[in-house]
Amino acid sequence: MSLDRLMKRIDEIHNPSVAGLDPKLEYIPRFIQDKFFVMKGRTLEAAADAILAYNKALIDALYDIVPAIKPQAAYYEMYGWAGMRTLSETIRYAQKKGMFVITDGKRNDIGATMTAYAAAHLGTVEVDGISQIPFGADALTVNGYLGSDGITPLLDICEKQDKGIFVLAKTSNPSSGELQDQQINGTPIYSVMGDMCETWGKDQIGSYGYSAIGAVVGATYPKQLAQLRERLPHTMFLVPGYGAQGGGAQGVAAAFDMQGRGAVVNSSRAILCAWKKDPNCSETDFAGAARREAIRMRDDITSYLHSFT
Amino acid sequence: MSLDRLMKRIDEIHNPSVAGLDPKLEYIPRFIQDKFFVMKGRTLEAAADAILAYNKALIDALYDIVPAIKPQAAYYEMYGWAGMRTLSETIRYAQKKGMFVITDGKRNDIGATMTAYAAAHLGTVEVDGISQIPFGADALTVNGYLGSDGITPLLDICEKQDKGIFVLAKTSNPSSGELQDQQINGTPIYSVMGDMCETWGKDQIGSYGYSAIGAVVGATYPKQLAQLRERLPHTMFLVPGYGAQGGGAQGVAAAFDMQGRGAVVNSSRAILCAWKKDPNCSETDFAGAARREAIRMRDDITSYLHSFT
Repeated sequence: MSLDRLMKRIDEIHNPSVAGLDPKLEYIPRFIQDKFFVMKGRTLEAAADAILAYNKALIDALYDIVPAIKPQAAYYEMYGWAGMRTLSETIRYAQKKGMFVITDGKRNDIGATMTAYAAAHLGTVEVDGISQIPFGADALTVNGYLGSDGITPLLDICEKQDKGIFVLAKTSNPSSGELQDQQINGTPIYSVMGDMCETWGKDQIGSYGYSAIGAVVGATYPKQLAQLRERLPHTMFLVPGYGAQGGGAQGVAAAFDMQGRGAVVNSSRAILCAWKKDPNCSETDFAGAARREAIRMRDDITSYLHSFT
Repeated sequence: MSLDRLMKRIDEIHNPSVAGLDPKLEYIPRFIQDKFFVMKGRTLEAAADAILAYNKALIDALYDIVPAIKPQAAYYEMYGWAGMRTLSETIRYAQKKGMFVITDGKRNDIGATMTAYAAAHLGTVEVDGISQIPFGADALTVNGYLGSDGITPLLDICEKQDKGIFVLAKTSNPSSGELQDQQINGTPIYSVMGDMCETWGKDQIGSYGYSAIGAVVGATYPKQLAQLRERLPHTMFLVPGYGAQGGGAQGVAAAFDMQGRGAVVNSSRAILCAWKKDPNCSETDFAGAARREAIRMRDDITSYLHSFT
């Protein structure tokens, strides 16, 4: 339908940011790790259980001030099927606390297979007539390299089940220009991809003027961010690269419209590892440190935005 | 290092094809499904267990005549974490039988996160000093839209642990041309991506002349297949779209070099569902039907190839 559920929550708590839950085992305080190693040995299952405990504590510390989480699928797959169980339980826990969940999977494939990914991450699957929810996120990041065949199966699930997607346009990494900045008849590929997002989203525009089809545009490229904001009036932006990757709040402001809407900014490591970066923070205060960093980030970003100042 | 392990096995059994294990629950004979529903109800776990039993029976029927399997990650994610456990156990079982395993995940992300995907699907992960294997495939399909940052973490694992990757170049779906056929200074994007594969692979060329970095090129575009074969002398092709998607063996022959090497052709549904397509086949003969179809496909493809005729 649209990304209204996310935008509404951003408005309610005046915070257009999302906490990236990309939990490597080494980010997690030793006392939590040890608890699970004692029970299950130094196994992938123990690691995945420790990550789940960490995630839940972070969600408890953030849910009333941060509208959404963005678990990065790679960091869960890294712990095998047990990691994927932690992903699924993290999603459910965050949703129970009222958070919007964007699974960062950058999935992509052709028609029938993309339908399977859509069911896996946003929808339901039938098991002999019983409908089951595999992962059940609210939105999914996707890669549009394969064209419309890879996106249209998602449009259907967005419309019928009130979900959203974010398509990669201009990613935050240093080499993103190798392909994405190349020009097709004078237009860079990231803009061509952005135009496709406008097309894919045109029948699913919500009450804030933005569609269910968002785009990923990195905070590390503020000029392109500003160009795309102007070019794509109905496309909400998911903005990675703030903080650790070098994107500043002033540059990020270009992702927002005049009402201070239309974007959500991700921070992962700065929140996850806040307790490690503060030499005065004890490891038992990891959740408090995450909350303080989330508040600092919120205030940093909103200080540059019209409607929130 | 290279894709030599795969190419050697292809030579040994004279079959350049791969069985795509994309198992939807409805492909599986009722008697297998029921066995697991009785034990675990109509749950994702029961579905995943039924799929594992089906996969093992297919592997038993194919391992001496087909060199590789290509499980499609989407169809495992569709059954949640239990589906991912089935993926992991399917990979291990096929490898024990001597098969090469290509996980079709089309993964893509930036540096640190791509390193996590590489560890997840091809490598190992450290759990407090103990090295564990999350999924452990031999090769992974990836999407190069993000540029070199998203590929270089994989080159390292390819070299050190003798693994391979296949990068999407020209995909088999009808709308693949929307982006991939667009021209950058007169060169279509699929060729630009192919050239990148040659560059990424240049230091990892094996004894057959092909590198560890392959490309995905659809059987449904035989003209582009022939162009790319000529343009990319060190890049092995993974060719989807044979059979069900309409690619014929004659067109597929263009993917191979003069020695009949340099490509591996995938078939999924035709093998998986062979028992359903033959009205005289009983459901208990599903594995036999898969084997007969795999032999028919092998003979069809090799009849067009120099070295195998």
